[in-house]
Amino acid sequence: MSDLWLTSLITETPQAGYELAVKMSRVAVKMTQTDEKIRADLRMIYEKDADALIAASAVVATHFQTVAAANNYWKD
Amino acid sequence: MSDLWLTSLITETPQAGYELAVKMSRVAVKMTQTDEKIRADLRMIYEKDADALIAASAVVATHFQTVAAANNYWKD
Amino acid sequence: MSDLWLTSLITETPQAGYELAVKMSRVAVKMTQTDEKIRADLRMIYEKDADALIAASAVVATHFQTVAAANNYWKD
Amino acid sequence: MSDLWLTSLITETPQAGYELAVKMSRVAVKMTQTDEKIRADLRMIYEKDADALIAASAVVATHFQTVAAANNYWKD
Amino acid sequence: MSDLWLTSLITETPQAGYELAVKMSRVAVKMTQTDEKIRADLRMIYEKDADALIAASAVVATHFQTVAAANNYWKD
Amino acid sequence: MSDLWLTSLITETPQAGYELAVKMSRVAVKMTQTDEKIRADLRMIYEKDADALIAASAVVATHFQTVAAANNYWKD
Repeated sequence: MSDLWLTSLITETPQAGYELAVKMSRVAVKMTQTDEKIRADLRMIYEKDADALIAASAVVATHFQTVAAANNYWKD
Repeated sequence: MSDLWLTSLITETPQAGYELAVKMSRVAVKMTQTDEKIRADLRMIYEKDADALIAASAVVATHFQTVAAANNYWKD
Repeated sequence: MSDLWLTSLITETPQAGYELAVKMSRVAVKMTQTDEKIRADLRMIYEKDADALIAASAVVATHFQTVAAANNYWKD
Repeated sequence: MSDLWLTSLITETPQAGYELAVKMSRVAVKMTQTDEKIRADLRMIYEKDADALIAASAVVATHFQTVAAANNYWKD
Repeated sequence: MSDLWLTSLITETPQAGYELAVKMSRVAVKMTQTDEKIRADLRMIYEKDADALIAASAVVATHFQTVAAANNYWKD
Repeated sequence: MSDLWLTSLITETPQAGYELAVKMSRVAVKMTQTDEKIRADLRMIYEKDADALIAASAVVATHFQTVAAANNYWKD
């Protein structure tokens, strides 16, 4: 994760902000489990697990709060 | 999810904001599990699982915080 | 849930705000599990499950944050 | 829960605010499980369950955020 | 918990604020499980349980948000 | 954890803020489980557990909210 992946929280639209929030929720997983192969295996499991999908959605919601505040809710 | 589905956080009423929050909580699930058939199967399970229903309600609550703040709590 | 149930976040008192937060936490469940009979069955189970009761309390806490902010913490 | 139990979020001290947050986290449980006997039984179980204790602590933390903001963090 | 343990949210440094957040997350557990012996037993279990450690870290994060806001993020 | 590890919430970039949030989420675990050997063992388990990875990502999201607010979302 030494790459540059988060240069700004500002997005053009709410939807782009939401997509950024999804990305932000996934990077923390990558930083903990750095092995791409293991992550792919885990993904096979959790994408068929309703509880995990809802938990992942909760992380997106928290990041979206941050992104939305950063963009003043795209009201400007 | 290349469709445009989130053009604004502004809604006419609190209830419309709540419905938007429900939508926002579901899109993250769709973006992780893109197969509609599998999502339908998962839904059959989790809609009869109190823990999952409460967890899903928690995600709605977080998104509603964001939508409510964006709308200045519909006080204007 | 086509009924009008959330017309305002403003309440007279903190306690009325808390009761609104409880209502808001339950509506998301109703919107996901629309069958009243199944919800009643689930309720029988989860109201005797400490984990579920605490999880439900967490959802109320999140909604109460929103309602309290909307009411400027009832300081006016 | 028809009693008046939450008349204000304002407290004299941070600690009193914390105690209010604890109370607020418990009331949601009481409103869902109204039978005092069952609640006492559940309490016997969950007060020996680390996961439940941590989950309950999380609810307190969320309510304390609200109470602390209401009191302007007791800085005035 | 009749002792005075939370007189202020203001701390000298972010790290002291973090340590206060840890303390705040633990007090709620103490207030629910008042028996020191049982808490020590539970601690033996949960400190070897990754899920519990992460859940406890989440509570710290929520309290730290409150403490950080109270201190205006130590920017003054 | 008597070392100085959190001297400021201010970072140059959003990504550095995100990395700080990851660090903040891990320190709480270290403060609860101080034995490095046990933490390494736990890590072996939880880094292959999707639920734990998502839960850890949630903690990062909460800390990132704090760091982002401290930095005024890197808008200045």
